[in-house]
Amino acid sequence: MIRQVTFVLAMFVFGCLASPTYAQAPMIQTQVPGYYRLQLGQFEITALHDGPTAMDAQLLSNIDAAEIKRLAARMFAAYPAMQGTVNAYLVNTGTHLVLVDAGATKAFNPNLGNLLENMQAAGYTPAQVDTILLTHLHPDHIGALTDADGKAVFVNAQVFTAKRESDYWLGKDNAQAAPANRQPMFKAAEAVATPYLSSGQWQTFSKETALVPGIKPVAAYGHTPGHTAYEIESEGQTLFIWGDVVHVHAVQFANPGAAIAFDVDQTMAVETRRNIMHKVATDKVLVAGMHLPFPGIGHVRMDEPEQYSWVPVEFQPYAQNK
Amino acid sequence: MIRQVTFVLAMFVFGCLASPTYAQAPMIQTQVPGYYRLQLGQFEITALHDGPTAMDAQLLSNIDAAEIKRLAARMFAAYPAMQGTVNAYLVNTGTHLVLVDAGATKAFNPNLGNLLENMQAAGYTPAQVDTILLTHLHPDHIGALTDADGKAVFVNAQVFTAKRESDYWLGKDNAQAAPANRQPMFKAAEAVATPYLSSGQWQTFSKETALVPGIKPVAAYGHTPGHTAYEIESEGQTLFIWGDVVHVHAVQFANPGAAIAFDVDQTMAVETRRNIMHKVATDKVLVAGMHLPFPGIGHVRMDEPEQYSWVPVEFQPYAQNK
Repeated sequence: MIRQVTFVLAMFVFGCLASPTYAQAPMIQTQVPGYYRLQLGQFEITALHDGPTAMDAQLLSNIDAAEIKRLAARMFAAYPAMQGTVNAYLVNTGTHLVLVDAGATKAFNPNLGNLLENMQAAGYTPAQVDTILLTHLHPDHIGALTDADGKAVFVNAQVFTAKRESDYWLGKDNAQAAPANRQPMFKAAEAVATPYLSSGQWQTFSKETALVPGIKPVAAYGHTPGHTAYEIESEGQTLFIWGDVVHVHAVQFANPGAAIAFDVDQTMAVETRRNIMHKVATDKVLVAGMHLPFPGIGHVRMDEPEQYSWVPVEFQPYAQNK
Repeated sequence: MIRQVTFVLAMFVFGCLASPTYAQAPMIQTQVPGYYRLQLGQFEITALHDGPTAMDAQLLSNIDAAEIKRLAARMFAAYPAMQGTVNAYLVNTGTHLVLVDAGATKAFNPNLGNLLENMQAAGYTPAQVDTILLTHLHPDHIGALTDADGKAVFVNAQVFTAKRESDYWLGKDNAQAAPANRQPMFKAAEAVATPYLSSGQWQTFSKETALVPGIKPVAAYGHTPGHTAYEIESEGQTLFIWGDVVHVHAVQFANPGAAIAFDVDQTMAVETRRNIMHKVATDKVLVAGMHLPFPGIGHVRMDEPEQYSWVPVEFQPYAQNK
């Protein structure tokens, strides 16, 4: 007994001598907030992370499984469930606070639906947003527009979408004619649009003219009938927010011909991707994408004809990254 | 006059109707805190951003200027001042809190010296750190070890460096024999080591045996005489923190033969880079680097013999990224 007490005492003294004030540090196990800021001329761009997704190889078509596997391995991506992401972008032009797309709801996918939390971490509230620009009306781009009770979250914002996009998803005939597995998409679009339609905040456009100074829509049809990119320009600097031109970056940069099950018109979606990739690579335009690795901002390099690489921007303090 | 008042009044009423509670949102203009968290088996890894640097093309040798320019353009990097970064890594093993490298001081470069601030944002204090592992004793890897008065900041930590690294930078003969432009490096190393030597916290090692459970040094000599990588392993998952194997990622992945002015032995540094790149690419090991785009964690892909690409990890919430 005495021996045991002496041993315990010795261990205690040794412990104290070895690390006078050290105690094991508890693990923190939280991630940094999901936003990233970048200057574009006089505009402030804030990328917002809505959450991660998994993109199954079976969603891809016009490419064989072995090729998907090879391209995933080349990018050290998991396979067959390749990592994806949902991003949105907040643009403060100095006179307008513009949100481009609005993520998903947690009901749609419990890993998503973090946009409002990350917007708050980034220093902004939904009430400050005066303009919302939607690339299209898929549920992972409109989720934060309404709350769990179906009420409008962005009470001071005008919500813009291409007329052909709005007409497609809100048209009763289209909804009824769509296959059963697409019905939830029509319902989600309608549910989100309803309060904004009632309040007169739902706006559509048919031309590529500026919606607020420095921001104009660019037709990028195919993924959906009215899928739209937005060109942001300040002091000669341009950011091209291309929406869903790419869903699975590990595969579709190297092989832009690969289509995804979510495309309403796969042939047109592939053609649009090829055209836009060629243009932004040639013009060396800064690009942002809703499903590109967060913050999803970078450049597209043409390695060979019809074969591209994604080159993300490097992390920088805000002051340095103009 | 009445007409003017009526006009102003009309504009006021119109303004109120158009945006009932909207006011221009002030720009926030701050960046997200500079840390990023990742799970590695049972270990928690926290990448810490010390700050951005600019790496001038003239620092590179064994490569011609046109080739540097071509490679910078390929990565959409500025030229000739290419973007660089200084990172450090905090490893919480559950029983040890280990800091690998310690950034620079603001006196060395006012854009750097943000490691302690980002460590705090990440939820840790210097007093919690019990082990510091230094890849080498260059001033951008030891800056946070002492405060402005030259006192030890990490009062509870044992500071480890390779014996040949410690001997080289703290040896009076080497300092005296070195060219004038290297003298500040010797002085910085000595100033940082002094308080830790006095308190008995300065430790050296000569073998590749574990310094704390799960972390062992791996010789990577060349950039400096005792330049050391650290292999972190938990539950079969490995992170290879390679220190300064690469300084200018836009150039040295595509052309590992390019050396940098800071290399003490350029020939050996190039050989080490070639060997390590070949090994981590072949073994598909997760790598972290002090000068790789923050968070500086990812994989190395061999595109062709002696030609590689850096493939960064994708942003993930902590829970998802194990």
